[in-house]
Amino acid sequence: MPNLDRIERALHAALQAIDGPGRPPRLAGAMQHAVFPSGARIRPQLVLAVAHACGEDDPALTDAAAVAIELLHCASLVHDDLPCFDDAATRRGRPSVQKAWGERLAVLAGDALIVAAYEALGRAAGRHVSRLPGLLATVSRGVGMPLGIVAGQAWECEPQVTLRDYQQAKTGALFAAATMAGAQSAGSTPEPWRGLGERLGQAYQVADDIRDVVGDAQALGKPVHRDIELDRPSMTRELGLDGALAEFRRLMDETEAAVPDCPGAAGFRALIRHEARRLVPTGLEDIRPRTPEAAWRVQAA
Amino acid sequence: MPNLDRIERALHAALQAIDGPGRPPRLAGAMQHAVFPSGARIRPQLVLAVAHACGEDDPALTDAAAVAIELLHCASLVHDDLPCFDDAATRRGRPSVQKAWGERLAVLAGDALIVAAYEALGRAAGRHVSRLPGLLATVSRGVGMPLGIVAGQAWECEPQVTLRDYQQAKTGALFAAATMAGAQSAGSTPEPWRGLGERLGQAYQVADDIRDVVGDAQALGKPVHRDIELDRPSMTRELGLDGALAEFRRLMDETEAAVPDCPGAAGFRALIRHEARRLVPTGLEDIRPRTPEAAWRVQAA
Repeated sequence: MPNLDRIERALHAALQAIDGPGRPPRLAGAMQHAVFPSGARIRPQLVLAVAHACGEDDPALTDAAAVAIELLHCASLVHDDLPCFDDAATRRGRPSVQKAWGERLAVLAGDALIVAAYEALGRAAGRHVSRLPGLLATVSRGVGMPLGIVAGQAWECEPQVTLRDYQQAKTGALFAAATMAGAQSAGSTPEPWRGLGERLGQAYQVADDIRDVVGDAQALGKPVHRDIELDRPSMTRELGLDGALAEFRRLMDETEAAVPDCPGAAGFRALIRHEARRLVPTGLEDIRPRTPEAAWRVQAA
Repeated sequence: MPNLDRIERALHAALQAIDGPGRPPRLAGAMQHAVFPSGARIRPQLVLAVAHACGEDDPALTDAAAVAIELLHCASLVHDDLPCFDDAATRRGRPSVQKAWGERLAVLAGDALIVAAYEALGRAAGRHVSRLPGLLATVSRGVGMPLGIVAGQAWECEPQVTLRDYQQAKTGALFAAATMAGAQSAGSTPEPWRGLGERLGQAYQVADDIRDVVGDAQALGKPVHRDIELDRPSMTRELGLDGALAEFRRLMDETEAAVPDCPGAAGFRALIRHEARRLVPTGLEDIRPRTPEAAWRVQAA
């Protein structure tokens, strides 16, 4: 996977660029822990794939867009795992940042990763500085108010929420930002890529809900059944497992159909199909939930 | 104070720009609470004052620089007040964000304010986009790793820290960013303004330490004696009250002497003298600490 190597190199370089004498070593450690070793890196892969499909002409800027999106994703995971939210002890198959480094460094590592994301964009914009305002707007809309992933997380603090709005903000927004930033980093118009990113993000979230119910913690790298334990809205709770699987397939079909006409369209569609198989393996329909509570919730939905 | 009106208008506009249908209303409320009503707004006033001294030519970009610095400052206060850090119940004379809106919304409001700061910069860069990368670098260095205010807060999680390094990062870094960003927003070279900002930030931090010992909570708008309760490094603990007062006067003199040669130098020096009087009123030397513990710590230092 040459793209994965490229992403890891760019992420290492981004953290290296903000290392230096006088930094607090434990915060540096917590930030490294939050970013490495690799998660699936689906969002930065999306950035690279869209930039490639659009005729990438500034690899440093595309790398920076991919880095920014991934660092913001890592920051959101670190803060989602805090005791006041999920209180997650594990993430990506090992201790979460808050478990390994403590709550205070988890708060600060998330903050510093948000800053590092923007710093990476600014540092790489030398050749095409005119693309920078659009990239800042895209990334900020994907993360902040009113509809970004931070807003999505905040819906957990509201008395009422529509499941689709919640999941669109919590996941879809950063996927849309990834596809749009990929296009912008290559000098293309971002809007045609928004819908594709949103649908893919929705599909990814449904897949996550499904794996929360049927998955095992080892394969997922994080605890399962958390949606039910935390009384969080979830597609499997709303539609049942079979309904959620059908919704996932529908969204992936729509994503594939939404690829704009461009030189790299065929390769891009292949990536989407690969992701569909990876996220929800064929045959998952035969796996039933393992705990009576989960089964009840799913059957009753 | 026309500058204060201008800053309040710009801050309102920045939060208005990211308001919109579909936003989680409680997060929007927590963000408003974090930014309004006004604190001293010393950092954005610095941005405006330096830009003016440098021959400001793009008020929208200067406003955005001031907004970015102040939103990042507000974000840092919200996160510093979290239960895992200061666990502060009050701030600016009323309930802290974590007290009024809960810990989860305090985490998210801080995150969203960081994003909003960068978004404001990107939105305003249309006329002088070539100034944007430098502004992003300045702001990011003032906040993030290795020496920004988040790094400064992280020194509270290290077993050992030099007081000066801690205070330089915790406060001086964002003051330096304020002066440098003011210059950059006006198209000027930022470096001549760095030392001034750093010294002013150090002076401000020493003043804060002094007021933590001798002040009363009502005048400060936040609890006093927190440095001692939280066993935090502090200039009054290191030098004693009289030593800290002497250090404050020395730093303010150095700040005044560091004003670069520019058309607005005289007005700028007047602002610094005004701040010196506001931060540590003359006659404070006669006020002794109120609690036996604080008195002991100060005398023993």
